[in-house]
Amino acid sequence: MRFKEKTVKSEVIYKGRIITVKKDDIVLPNGNSAIREVVHHSGGSAILCEMDGKILMVKQFRYPYAEELWEIPAGKLNEGESPELTAIRELEEEGGIKAKRVEKLFEIYPTPAYNDEIIRIYQAFDLEKTQKHLDEDEFLTSEWIEKEKLKDMIYSGEIKDAKTVIALLAVLDK
Amino acid sequence: MRFKEKTVKSEVIYKGRIITVKKDDIVLPNGNSAIREVVHHSGGSAILCEMDGKILMVKQFRYPYAEELWEIPAGKLNEGESPELTAIRELEEEGGIKAKRVEKLFEIYPTPAYNDEIIRIYQAFDLEKTQKHLDEDEFLTSEWIEKEKLKDMIYSGEIKDAKTVIALLAVLDK
Repeated sequence: MRFKEKTVKSEVIYKGRIITVKKDDIVLPNGNSAIREVVHHSGGSAILCEMDGKILMVKQFRYPYAEELWEIPAGKLNEGESPELTAIRELEEEGGIKAKRVEKLFEIYPTPAYNDEIIRIYQAFDLEKTQKHLDEDEFLTSEWIEKEKLKDMIYSGEIKDAKTVIALLAVLDK
Repeated sequence: MRFKEKTVKSEVIYKGRIITVKKDDIVLPNGNSAIREVVHHSGGSAILCEMDGKILMVKQFRYPYAEELWEIPAGKLNEGESPELTAIRELEEEGGIKAKRVEKLFEIYPTPAYNDEIIRIYQAFDLEKTQKHLDEDEFLTSEWIEKEKLKDMIYSGEIKDAKTVIALLAVLDK
């Protein structure tokens, strides 16, 4: 790599429930010193699930924006859990669908300037209807939405979540 | 909104150069208490620029992943700067192209569970070649890449940056 930045010192600023924040002193390729702020997150999985021309979407309140957002089912990796299993688990918990097979569509870096989260996006296959089971403190609704309508929702700005826009753009017709 | 979360207390944990981290006590729709960690970022703009069937891409080292990543030109909003102006400025600084007109394609939330950044993605029109002018401490290379090649780079996982994948999926043929 031509432009590697070298870590001189790394300081943990905050160790929280979902994120850890670090402030690092680094050396740039020209020898100058700089600071890098890094939000560490253990990673997440999202899953696109299509049935009869409709896609399973969930709507939930997202505190940082104080808005309810449309997203595909997704969640944080539990400790020791493979990303595939996270995707399959979240689909069943949030959507009441069991996928016997998943295929990875993308591995995405949401904000690479200051965040190290990796979001894996899967597609679900060999589906079976089961039961949703949300945590007591989890509030979301799910809905099967027509692909044509989803295209309108993306281009009108109604769907804003990055992983969801990527998954949908990949499977919707132009 | 059915599932609104109410802020009880908001504490600034870290006020940095690029991000501010807050830890809020909230009340859930069922009356239970919870914590929300929020990374605040002032927002950014990205810009897709096409000329003669090629798209302008930049490659730079991204410290959180310790990798060089392919992205479309982008940057943080300067204080008081409109998102359109940020996009136009970054295209000229990083790519040496002046756009006389831009159109907004998307407004994206990269990781809505714990981050409030808004990334606006523009498309550049009425282009004129000028000069790149990077900051002394900014290291990146730019390259015009064929659209067909970019499709391969997305689906092979070589391009991982979320805003870039969204912008490219929107304009590349299926």
